[in-house]
Amino acid sequence: MSKIKKLLVANRGEISLRIMRTAREMGIATVAVYSEADRLSPHVLFADEAVCLGPPASNKSYLLGDKIISVCQELGVDAIHPGYGFLSENADFARKVQQAGLIFIGPSPEAIEVMGSKLAAKQAVGKYDIPLVPGTEEAISDIPVAKARASEIGYPILIKASAGGGGKGMRVVENEGEFEEQMQRAVSEAQSSFGDSAVFIEKYISSPRHIEIQVLGDQQGNIVYLFERECSIQRRHQKVIEEAPSAVVSPAMRKAMGEAAVGVAKACSYYGAGTVEFIVDEQLNFFFLEMNTRLQVEHPVTEMITGKDLVREQILIAEGNPLSFTQDELKINGHSLEVRVYAEDPRNNFLPDIGRLETYKRPQGAGIRVDDGFEEGMDIPIYYDPMIAKLITHAENRNAAIEKMVRAIEDFKIVGIQTTLDFCKFAITHEAFVSGAFDTKFVENYFNPSVLDQKFTDSELEVISALAVEFFTKNKPSGSLKNTSADNTESAWRNRLH
Amino acid sequence: MSKIKKLLVANRGEISLRIMRTAREMGIATVAVYSEADRLSPHVLFADEAVCLGPPASNKSYLLGDKIISVCQELGVDAIHPGYGFLSENADFARKVQQAGLIFIGPSPEAIEVMGSKLAAKQAVGKYDIPLVPGTEEAISDIPVAKARASEIGYPILIKASAGGGGKGMRVVENEGEFEEQMQRAVSEAQSSFGDSAVFIEKYISSPRHIEIQVLGDQQGNIVYLFERECSIQRRHQKVIEEAPSAVVSPAMRKAMGEAAVGVAKACSYYGAGTVEFIVDEQLNFFFLEMNTRLQVEHPVTEMITGKDLVREQILIAEGNPLSFTQDELKINGHSLEVRVYAEDPRNNFLPDIGRLETYKRPQGAGIRVDDGFEEGMDIPIYYDPMIAKLITHAENRNAAIEKMVRAIEDFKIVGIQTTLDFCKFAITHEAFVSGAFDTKFVENYFNPSVLDQKFTDSELEVISALAVEFFTKNKPSGSLKNTSADNTESAWRNRLH
Repeated sequence: MSKIKKLLVANRGEISLRIMRTAREMGIATVAVYSEADRLSPHVLFADEAVCLGPPASNKSYLLGDKIISVCQELGVDAIHPGYGFLSENADFARKVQQAGLIFIGPSPEAIEVMGSKLAAKQAVGKYDIPLVPGTEEAISDIPVAKARASEIGYPILIKASAGGGGKGMRVVENEGEFEEQMQRAVSEAQSSFGDSAVFIEKYISSPRHIEIQVLGDQQGNIVYLFERECSIQRRHQKVIEEAPSAVVSPAMRKAMGEAAVGVAKACSYYGAGTVEFIVDEQLNFFFLEMNTRLQVEHPVTEMITGKDLVREQILIAEGNPLSFTQDELKINGHSLEVRVYAEDPRNNFLPDIGRLETYKRPQGAGIRVDDGFEEGMDIPIYYDPMIAKLITHAENRNAAIEKMVRAIEDFKIVGIQTTLDFCKFAITHEAFVSGAFDTKFVENYFNPSVLDQKFTDSELEVISALAVEFFTKNKPSGSLKNTSADNTESAWRNRLH
Repeated sequence: MSKIKKLLVANRGEISLRIMRTAREMGIATVAVYSEADRLSPHVLFADEAVCLGPPASNKSYLLGDKIISVCQELGVDAIHPGYGFLSENADFARKVQQAGLIFIGPSPEAIEVMGSKLAAKQAVGKYDIPLVPGTEEAISDIPVAKARASEIGYPILIKASAGGGGKGMRVVENEGEFEEQMQRAVSEAQSSFGDSAVFIEKYISSPRHIEIQVLGDQQGNIVYLFERECSIQRRHQKVIEEAPSAVVSPAMRKAMGEAAVGVAKACSYYGAGTVEFIVDEQLNFFFLEMNTRLQVEHPVTEMITGKDLVREQILIAEGNPLSFTQDELKINGHSLEVRVYAEDPRNNFLPDIGRLETYKRPQGAGIRVDDGFEEGMDIPIYYDPMIAKLITHAENRNAAIEKMVRAIEDFKIVGIQTTLDFCKFAITHEAFVSGAFDTKFVENYFNPSVLDQKFTDSELEVISALAVEFFTKNKPSGSLKNTSADNTESAWRNRLH
């Protein structure tokens, strides 16, 4: 065991600050790195020491692994925390850090490597009983064989060109009757597009949820799971709202997912904090997708419901300490939500809307946590991810956590740039979210920018539609009513006024 | 049951804001009241409606019960939350509120009355098995009778003039040998000072701790306890640092104190949130002191460790809802500390040091809560309690909560006035506090202003004292060393350099 005395965070913004806060609480000296664009950022001002890496572009600053290692050697740093993004899942960097005699706060380079490759990951978890999306293990092109396999898997199924990728050469088949025709097309398309007619067949999950399990493992081989995070609300395939626990995961399902996640971690001799991602279908079957070998953006919701400081645990594990608690000692306390406050315009397809934080006032009060890396008056730089803050609430149950989040969003005063705050308020108060019946298609199913600009409040709508019904009941038949197909009910008026 | 739709908070500052935040989360409209001194306070700006009560002096504003009731009638308010202080323990006000057809968020006027009188409270709890400080139940003046009684109680004992008060006419007797002489003096002093020679005798608790139990009761007669708060660190007989749980209360003692507190609450048919205060001696015997029939300043530490929002519970109870949980469902999660940030100068006997908050930056991050009612640039008015903020930390154990508090105090940037922040940092890092071995005499035992102005940091002291030892070891015998009584050890040098 080697006690860490000085820690460098190879990252920027909120996650750098968040890591250094815990380090300071543990009595560990902190070193920040920064690009010229972040010279006056809170993470730089907070650190005991700070070193400029270079110009704003990531590949000239935050991605310069060798430079970061030499900074450590110069300043007597003994450990590097990579945060998320940048160098956090770079096995070569992790290896070089270790070769330089420094502690890498994360898993072994080998674990990063295995889980960084989908194929290697699937092979590694093979001997553990981990559910994978049902499908052919090898590419096929023989139609009768494929059809038999498809029937075994069960419709709908997905035909994917072996040589395709990124959605290209994919075809959904709804039932057996369509199979032969679609398979023939897929095979010939694959041949013409990629010069390879081989395809894979797998179960098509039409309404997928994204649910992930947090794991922690020590260097002695103990691994525990810290329950799930529901991350199905996404925009542009990126998470924007997360919560723990999930509204649909039962204790039995939680245990099964948790044990599967521990199996995945065991398969690569994992230590440190990691996240095992699953895709979940409408019947709540879950299938292993991939493992993220680092701290996640959304880790705070897990901290809120377990009372564990995941960064503290990462540091203790990296020092060689065994976990100080067992699976049985972990309990879920209440419910936590996180919304990501991005400098994006939800009215314009969530495109980045960077600029200056003219006003920036955080919400206050019990059960509210804001993880950010900005202060009022600062510019959001164009060079990096446009996340301004993570707004987290914690309350004794899901409804109270939602109510608190609504209040917190209303109290978060940001002027100067468009943000995802009003989209997030729309989402968490939407019937589908409140009831828990949502999937990764939430945005395409329910969101359009006009919902953010309602002309009337709900109570105004109630009054106006009641007045309309009363008026047109007294004055029927009305020409204007006849000219439309609307009936004279409150809900009809409400819809038209909306 | 009557759902509250609009709530007036008959208070100001942090507690008004804190109550309104919960009300808003519950969908309840909020009305603030204010004096002319608080016109631009955050609690006024936050509320849906706000009404000026009058000039700054409390008796011309926040204490005007009748005016507040008429504001409620004018604005269609259906419930009043009194906060703490001001009208919160005024039974007449509570009664008038009810007579006006409004809901008073607190216990019955009768419970306030009973617990407002020490004598009535003692009589009420008589039939329950509540430990009271051992002593004579009636005044006596006969010396042999008194001596026999004192022996039964056990020394040290306290002789208190029946007609005395506020510390006057009190005398500590350490052992039986001193008794007769002290008793004679006490009796004659009582006769000459108060014209009444009768005295009480009670157990003298020389190193008292102040530990209190939070209770919640509904209008159906269910009462639960939400564990203890340790409030022994006081300055000028007022609490300044609180924590939950206490470092010295065992599970068995917690249960015994909790059940005693429930007994006290039952004795006055208590409903709502209340606090039963106990004095605890060195052997950890506890004795009922009094019951506070309102929300306490230090209620947040209980919220942090139980996950319950006490204001939400108060509102639900006032609406007539039964408690939604049982005693068995309440669990302690982690540890919480609160330090009160007063506009006071610890270097000048904690006298108020009001003025303008030139800089006011709150600490951020996981497990930190700041309850306050000010913003940067505001003046701390001279008319009210000089508390600026309550800084609360929550972590998985006591050490982590202390470490987080130290970090939070360092990150709390207040410029323009003196505050209790550096005193609080001194106190929570003091050996006596860290070990848990402290009592209400902490400040007089350990604090003097010079400790806030150490000339060297601990690590500087370490280096300097080591250098001194080395030098004087090589150069002995040194005249200067001879001239002092100090020996040439690191700890001796450290003490002299301090």
